[in-house]
Amino acid sequence: MPNEMPLHAVPLTIEGSWMLHLFWRLDRARWAELDRQKQEEIAQQFADACCDTGAQVFSIIGHKADLLILLVDESLEEVREAELKLRKLAMSAYVSVPYSYFSVVELGLYESSLKTYRALGEQGVAPHSEAWDKAIGETLERQREAMAPRLSAEIPASPYICFYPMDRLRGEDKNWYTVPIEERARMMHEHGLVGRRYAGQVKQIISGSIGLDDWEWGVDLFADDPAVFKRLIYEMRFDEVSAVYAKFGQFFVGKRVPNEKVVSILLG
Amino acid sequence: MPNEMPLHAVPLTIEGSWMLHLFWRLDRARWAELDRQKQEEIAQQFADACCDTGAQVFSIIGHKADLLILLVDESLEEVREAELKLRKLAMSAYVSVPYSYFSVVELGLYESSLKTYRALGEQGVAPHSEAWDKAIGETLERQREAMAPRLSAEIPASPYICFYPMDRLRGEDKNWYTVPIEERARMMHEHGLVGRRYAGQVKQIISGSIGLDDWEWGVDLFADDPAVFKRLIYEMRFDEVSAVYAKFGQFFVGKRVPNEKVVSILLG
Amino acid sequence: MPNEMPLHAVPLTIEGSWMLHLFWRLDRARWAELDRQKQEEIAQQFADACCDTGAQVFSIIGHKADLLILLVDESLEEVREAELKLRKLAMSAYVSVPYSYFSVVELGLYESSLKTYRALGEQGVAPHSEAWDKAIGETLERQREAMAPRLSAEIPASPYICFYPMDRLRGEDKNWYTVPIEERARMMHEHGLVGRRYAGQVKQIISGSIGLDDWEWGVDLFADDPAVFKRLIYEMRFDEVSAVYAKFGQFFVGKRVPNEKVVSILLG
Amino acid sequence: MPNEMPLHAVPLTIEGSWMLHLFWRLDRARWAELDRQKQEEIAQQFADACCDTGAQVFSIIGHKADLLILLVDESLEEVREAELKLRKLAMSAYVSVPYSYFSVVELGLYESSLKTYRALGEQGVAPHSEAWDKAIGETLERQREAMAPRLSAEIPASPYICFYPMDRLRGEDKNWYTVPIEERARMMHEHGLVGRRYAGQVKQIISGSIGLDDWEWGVDLFADDPAVFKRLIYEMRFDEVSAVYAKFGQFFVGKRVPNEKVVSILLG
Amino acid sequence: MPNEMPLHAVPLTIEGSWMLHLFWRLDRARWAELDRQKQEEIAQQFADACCDTGAQVFSIIGHKADLLILLVDESLEEVREAELKLRKLAMSAYVSVPYSYFSVVELGLYESSLKTYRALGEQGVAPHSEAWDKAIGETLERQREAMAPRLSAEIPASPYICFYPMDRLRGEDKNWYTVPIEERARMMHEHGLVGRRYAGQVKQIISGSIGLDDWEWGVDLFADDPAVFKRLIYEMRFDEVSAVYAKFGQFFVGKRVPNEKVVSILLG
Repeated sequence: MPNEMPLHAVPLTIEGSWMLHLFWRLDRARWAELDRQKQEEIAQQFADACCDTGAQVFSIIGHKADLLILLVDESLEEVREAELKLRKLAMSAYVSVPYSYFSVVELGLYESSLKTYRALGEQGVAPHSEAWDKAIGETLERQREAMAPRLSAEIPASPYICFYPMDRLRGEDKNWYTVPIEERARMMHEHGLVGRRYAGQVKQIISGSIGLDDWEWGVDLFADDPAVFKRLIYEMRFDEVSAVYAKFGQFFVGKRVPNEKVVSILLG
Repeated sequence: MPNEMPLHAVPLTIEGSWMLHLFWRLDRARWAELDRQKQEEIAQQFADACCDTGAQVFSIIGHKADLLILLVDESLEEVREAELKLRKLAMSAYVSVPYSYFSVVELGLYESSLKTYRALGEQGVAPHSEAWDKAIGETLERQREAMAPRLSAEIPASPYICFYPMDRLRGEDKNWYTVPIEERARMMHEHGLVGRRYAGQVKQIISGSIGLDDWEWGVDLFADDPAVFKRLIYEMRFDEVSAVYAKFGQFFVGKRVPNEKVVSILLG
Repeated sequence: MPNEMPLHAVPLTIEGSWMLHLFWRLDRARWAELDRQKQEEIAQQFADACCDTGAQVFSIIGHKADLLILLVDESLEEVREAELKLRKLAMSAYVSVPYSYFSVVELGLYESSLKTYRALGEQGVAPHSEAWDKAIGETLERQREAMAPRLSAEIPASPYICFYPMDRLRGEDKNWYTVPIEERARMMHEHGLVGRRYAGQVKQIISGSIGLDDWEWGVDLFADDPAVFKRLIYEMRFDEVSAVYAKFGQFFVGKRVPNEKVVSILLG
Repeated sequence: MPNEMPLHAVPLTIEGSWMLHLFWRLDRARWAELDRQKQEEIAQQFADACCDTGAQVFSIIGHKADLLILLVDESLEEVREAELKLRKLAMSAYVSVPYSYFSVVELGLYESSLKTYRALGEQGVAPHSEAWDKAIGETLERQREAMAPRLSAEIPASPYICFYPMDRLRGEDKNWYTVPIEERARMMHEHGLVGRRYAGQVKQIISGSIGLDDWEWGVDLFADDPAVFKRLIYEMRFDEVSAVYAKFGQFFVGKRVPNEKVVSILLG
Repeated sequence: MPNEMPLHAVPLTIEGSWMLHLFWRLDRARWAELDRQKQEEIAQQFADACCDTGAQVFSIIGHKADLLILLVDESLEEVREAELKLRKLAMSAYVSVPYSYFSVVELGLYESSLKTYRALGEQGVAPHSEAWDKAIGETLERQREAMAPRLSAEIPASPYICFYPMDRLRGEDKNWYTVPIEERARMMHEHGLVGRRYAGQVKQIISGSIGLDDWEWGVDLFADDPAVFKRLIYEMRFDEVSAVYAKFGQFFVGKRVPNEKVVSILLG
């Protein structure tokens, strides 16, 4: 019976906007050598470039960076050109870039994958056959339409941001990528239930970065109350999928800097 | 029987003051280029800013940093604004910030969680139902009132500080986050007994940083005799919860610099 | 029966062109001190050297580097001399080299190894005997001729590049190098099937670096659509050989800079 | 029967002198800008400060540092003030401090702990009862007197030093801190036997740094023949306690610089 | 029967020449500020010092370093003094030293250890008894004489060098230091057989660095054809001792710079 074969392991995903997180650290020794007028001129040019490119600016807490500059656009080319524009500003001679993250908004379709793979299995359609590819293509297309608003990442207007990259564990004993897709779908579903309880307090954007950057996913959370970042992530840590299979990179917390305050946050 | 269901896994926690540990390293090459009067002027402006923001200053032993500047306040906004104020001082053109730690004072309520979860289980109240949320809310409120003095972190006046961040292990075999809450509560209780034996010698502040910084918790110890840091932490290392489930970051030891000595510690 | 002995474990490989990936980061503070004419002069000298040495230039996204300079040549000596030439340019006083990768194009001949080892086993030829060495030499020679076009790495003209180094796992329990060669050949074959489905969308160059650099292999992917990097590598992550035995280094994504644009990408 | 209870797990330890290892790297670019007379003046001031503070100076082999400055004193305050004094020297504008280690001389009393714990167990004295604390206090006092010469660390006059920090393993399977104290005592005893065979050739000082620095212990070895460092540590690596439970940090090897040569080792 | 006791675990080793690998990176920004005559003068002084100290110079491929300076001498003191001499050159104000490796040529005598330990076991001689020490001393003396040419490391004249440091694994499950010496001897013997097949193509020098530097051994390979480094090390990776028990540090590949070319390789 075809539906007793193991299901295809790879979950369907659809991609949306491209994202580049740039973390800037001000070189205060050199910056302080400029007089205030020169600082203002350079900072204003930077603020204008943020306007032009649609870059959103956040002030980062602690030593990891001064600013997060978040670039989001429909194509990689737009993101890349915005980055080049920033690199060529006078301001960039006064900063270093201790970290960045490059990714693309991603929706992982575990439930719809299961349904599609089961249906194709019952019909005896072989993975990667022409019929398979056609059916998968249709599912992806349907999902892209249904999810369109979530794929074109609107950065929420909330004042606080929390960003961190993460991996799924590939340990010698516990390995996410060898767990059957039904088990992974169940764990992702339970994980989603926790998130849903925080829906009114936190908005999140998940972006995929396998093949694009050093971790597999980037997570952006947005909230009015930064304590919620801690409560949500602590609660999630007891989910099976996080407790056993999550590896986390650095955590960055910042406060939105509205465009009209970008200059003043840089001045002495 | 409802009380035979596994208890909810997430311990209740309450949060208090926000904390930012800033570690500063003096750039001695550039600092030495200033004449003494200029150094005094800049150092005095820094000392004044510490007064204004309530920052406490410690002189750190060894190469990791020269100074720890400890910012503690009721809201993240106050802490963040104090940090921005420091970043804009003339002094900050003569230092680098090799490390920092951002967290919020936290009390983990393992015993009260167990009691509440057991009671709710016996009453057949489903987790995350309206009745559950109400009961949990009341417990948290009661605890916040009872614990108010410990939540609003008064930094002890003791001369020596020891700071380190830590995680609970999520190994492939030994994983804190998959241990039943009753077991975790028992281990935390035994861990607390060791601490209690040192109550007269050490004061501690635990702050949570899941979702805020790269480790899960920050620990600040304060003592009159720095040898006590070693004795306490060595003894605790044999506790089950530390022996098996603790991962430690860097350890920083420092001596309090009273405000009136901040200038002189910076001068050549 | 000789053919029941374990087969020789080492897969046959043939080598082609030598590769050096050089990642350059512009020192913007010092670069900005030059007037535009001087910048142009220095950048033009660099662009000319790229022409002379056949270096291909890519603009890298994010903080890891500004440029990837890809040197490919028939002999190590040519690659090394090209690198020395670049080191001596005026430009190299305005860049740092945060990363590089040194490797040689490699084709791993798992299927042909199996066939040859089985045949020699059935003939009772002892490994490393004279007859063995002769037969192996003939196989390698035949393969070198048959594979000549793939050994002499033509860098595909596609606009986007993705580079990452990788290892095969040598864990205490899961260890690629102790898996029987038949099992490894089977896993590599399945891995290749995934790659083949992307043949029209991605071109890849595998280079070996055991004994040459810090990881065992380097992977270069070339595509018109950078989203394909993510889809291919995500799908491959569920292959047994990747899921269980792959360890990845940093991922670098870049866009080709045609020679006539090398100067303009460097100017302010 | 009380003596069948598991013995108290924490070995008794006594502390002696405080130690600070400071590793200095000369900034040769800036140092070379000074004329010889200025260099001599600054180096002489540094040499004088070494005399005043009792600092011992070693010339370190390789890139890790130029000098090790070893501060040893009866109290943390004396060590800390010596460090502050060094930080304020003109010399410190020409060096960086790539590493340091802060610790206190420690004698671990495994044998005496076993004897005391067994006796108290047989008498039915409960751990941490008043009687227990009194007996433990008496044991510690007796040991402090008996060991006084080893607690007040006299730095041996041998020309060569080897310093490294270390931890005891807390792996998921092999965990020093969950091994019964009798087993640990046995392993430490066997470890000591190896050391004793080298008694005429190597002198060692063990210092504890749990809660003080990033590793648990620091080890200083002193010898006339540096090849002995290798022989001793290689032989010890086959001890059960080292083979299974030792994690090592960086190794530093240096040659003593007598005070009258401190200036000349710094001059060009 | 005494010969059924486990054999003594520590293999006999004999030591020869001391080695210091110094890796230099040119600070091109500062170097380029000198005029050509000054560069020549400084580079010539460096080349002369290489002659005087017998230092051999290699040009390193990639970002890890520009030059490897290899110091080999009969005593640590000679090596250390050569290093000090180099540190004091004008050149050293224009370089950083990103890496170094300190070690002593070592021959591990597994076969002769087995033979000696078996003989002593059969005679009932207790380890570390006077008779034991005498017999061991005689074995070592005999081996030192027999191996004299290999102990006094003559650096082969081949144009290419490959250097890497390595450890033997001490994992929780797979631990080289708890494997019986007979097993280790067998694995080392098989490992040696692979090496022997490359005898005409590669010369190697093994140096020990336990207690001297951060890894346990350093390996230098010398060849006319650098592709042989890859082939040899890839083949060895399937040996049991490498597959299971080898941990590798960074790999450095370089080309010999004859003394008369040291100046020209540094000039712009």
